[in-house]
Amino acid sequence: MTKAPALLPEGLRDRLPRQAEAASRVTRALVDAMRAHGYGRVSPPLAEFRETLGSDDDRSGRDLLRFTDPVSQRTLALRPDITRQVGRIATSLLAASPRPLRLCYAGQVVKLRASQLRPAREMLQVGAELIGSDSVAAAREIVTVAIDALEAAGIGPVTIDFTLPDVVDLLAFGPLPVTADLQQLRDELDAKDAGALARIGAGAYLPLLRATGPFDRAITDLRAFDTSGVLGGRIDALEAIAAPIRDRVTLTLDPTERHGFAYQSWFGFQIFVPGQGDAVGRGGAYAIPVGEAEEAAVGFSLYPDPLIDAGLGAEDMAERRIFLPLGHDAAVAASLRADGWRTVAALTDADDATRLGCAYVLGADGPVEA
Amino acid sequence: MTKAPALLPEGLRDRLPRQAEAASRVTRALVDAMRAHGYGRVSPPLAEFRETLGSDDDRSGRDLLRFTDPVSQRTLALRPDITRQVGRIATSLLAASPRPLRLCYAGQVVKLRASQLRPAREMLQVGAELIGSDSVAAAREIVTVAIDALEAAGIGPVTIDFTLPDVVDLLAFGPLPVTADLQQLRDELDAKDAGALARIGAGAYLPLLRATGPFDRAITDLRAFDTSGVLGGRIDALEAIAAPIRDRVTLTLDPTERHGFAYQSWFGFQIFVPGQGDAVGRGGAYAIPVGEAEEAAVGFSLYPDPLIDAGLGAEDMAERRIFLPLGHDAAVAASLRADGWRTVAALTDADDATRLGCAYVLGADGPVEA
Repeated sequence: MTKAPALLPEGLRDRLPRQAEAASRVTRALVDAMRAHGYGRVSPPLAEFRETLGSDDDRSGRDLLRFTDPVSQRTLALRPDITRQVGRIATSLLAASPRPLRLCYAGQVVKLRASQLRPAREMLQVGAELIGSDSVAAAREIVTVAIDALEAAGIGPVTIDFTLPDVVDLLAFGPLPVTADLQQLRDELDAKDAGALARIGAGAYLPLLRATGPFDRAITDLRAFDTSGVLGGRIDALEAIAAPIRDRVTLTLDPTERHGFAYQSWFGFQIFVPGQGDAVGRGGAYAIPVGEAEEAAVGFSLYPDPLIDAGLGAEDMAERRIFLPLGHDAAVAASLRADGWRTVAALTDADDATRLGCAYVLGADGPVEA
Repeated sequence: MTKAPALLPEGLRDRLPRQAEAASRVTRALVDAMRAHGYGRVSPPLAEFRETLGSDDDRSGRDLLRFTDPVSQRTLALRPDITRQVGRIATSLLAASPRPLRLCYAGQVVKLRASQLRPAREMLQVGAELIGSDSVAAAREIVTVAIDALEAAGIGPVTIDFTLPDVVDLLAFGPLPVTADLQQLRDELDAKDAGALARIGAGAYLPLLRATGPFDRAITDLRAFDTSGVLGGRIDALEAIAAPIRDRVTLTLDPTERHGFAYQSWFGFQIFVPGQGDAVGRGGAYAIPVGEAEEAAVGFSLYPDPLIDAGLGAEDMAERRIFLPLGHDAAVAASLRADGWRTVAALTDADDATRLGCAYVLGADGPVEA
């Protein structure tokens, strides 16, 4: 072996035991909660053909860490996202499986560049996808599964922020036509720039900026704004999705939020945890392309690394860690492990319980404090 | 999103729920068993600088899937092995941690090329390393931890094949000097080619080829061969390592086995499972370079994928999977999940329990068979 420099590439890092075990604990809790709702875990590969991971037309494709595969002589990329891989599995290997098809996943993803908010280029992504429906019932289920998973992993209190990705299309092609470019209208609404809205002749959209904030008040404002009733179905849907979770989380509405919802069709949501600037997860309704057609789906993704860095899932490493002196009884040691103890066996007389991080030592009559 | 072709690059694949969940179950059992022995889990990154992952002088370096990192403008590679990363962590971030330092890991590794025996280029590697000692006590512990982990994951019955990587050096620089090149002598012994041994004037080594097979008989043959006593310490060590495990596994000895032991110092072992041609794991004593010096270590790695493909860890997917009809009681559903049921909720009247893989349906009085 050659000498290993201590430095790693920018954005890549080692997780030491306290954090690595916390990450493992959090992942297990999230995956178990999703599986309890009938979501079968799938594991796509770390890399695949570049074309199947994203398109150069959008951010997904520009974000790829690519390389030439000497075996296939083709360009592969590390996966920047697992949702798309799950869509590929659902519409290929599992194309014939009954719908709705419920799948979940947990794994590392790698991005070409870090962002200022998130300096990591490799991160844990955990999520669930329900394929074959984007109905209100499907959206309600996926939001509930996300909240159950977060709760099981000890993540909270959370705020869920709903959005309506197609609200501008419904209005502009309906009661509120605009002369401005639709993408520009969407951008100004996303930026909450009232002055710009007036300048591009979209003053009629101004009340939308106020229909933002705590869910009940924002929904009331949205209904008042929707004099034509074109948003009635969407508003009813949001209320139906909110009903089973309103006592469990803080709910907000931001109908024109666009960030991170490039693919969502009619419903999106972001998950926030106090003290974390960026969302810890997002989800919604979307469509998976299948040849010339598409298949409806709902899903969510969580990125728990910043929470784990902040202490989520961490345990006292010395607790339940017991030192086994030289000449200890192997059967007693095995029964301690079966009872949940972590044993640390002495290899020499020089080994010391406290130095080796053990709060306990195995004495003649069982565990004693070190 | 663009259309996703169903094909993946050669050697990469998707794991569907039955196998992905089995892999997760097996990984948890292995990691939990290693943690119970005081091995703290670490998680190194999927990729790092090419120089820290292997050297071009040996197979480790030639096996690397490399790419240029646009951020650092340096060559990175996907990790083909986690042991070396753990050595890097132990001698850098954890250089000041008390020894012996016990670490474990589980993760995906990626190789440039598949082998005929193992067509996968991405595979699961799980293992443990004890850093700071390569004593007989350390070797005995690491072999015991390996067997406990295998047993916890339901892997077995296993055969453990011991080897002595430095046996030729001990003999050739001691009682049995040879004129032949030492590497050639090692190769002919590894190939068990009696004719070649005679041809290169190493006929004195012939009895070593017979000291192979069931442990007790092979040890007896090895002692008989070792008239000078130069191997006495090694033989005593092997017997000490074997003592606590001889009733738990089938033990064999192949003192001149070299395959996969390029890095091992004085002791190596391979783990075989009936029906699997290739070893499912290997380990032994080795040295981690630290500047001009080195640090002693023992460890092992397991590659459980072929066993998972053969059904290890798989469960009946329909069992404990219960269909929740429309209008079911959410609190009852939650209590079923808390009891270990996997619930599958109807989204429409058309959803069908059996089609959705449920062996049970929630009736008015609780679960009934579907």
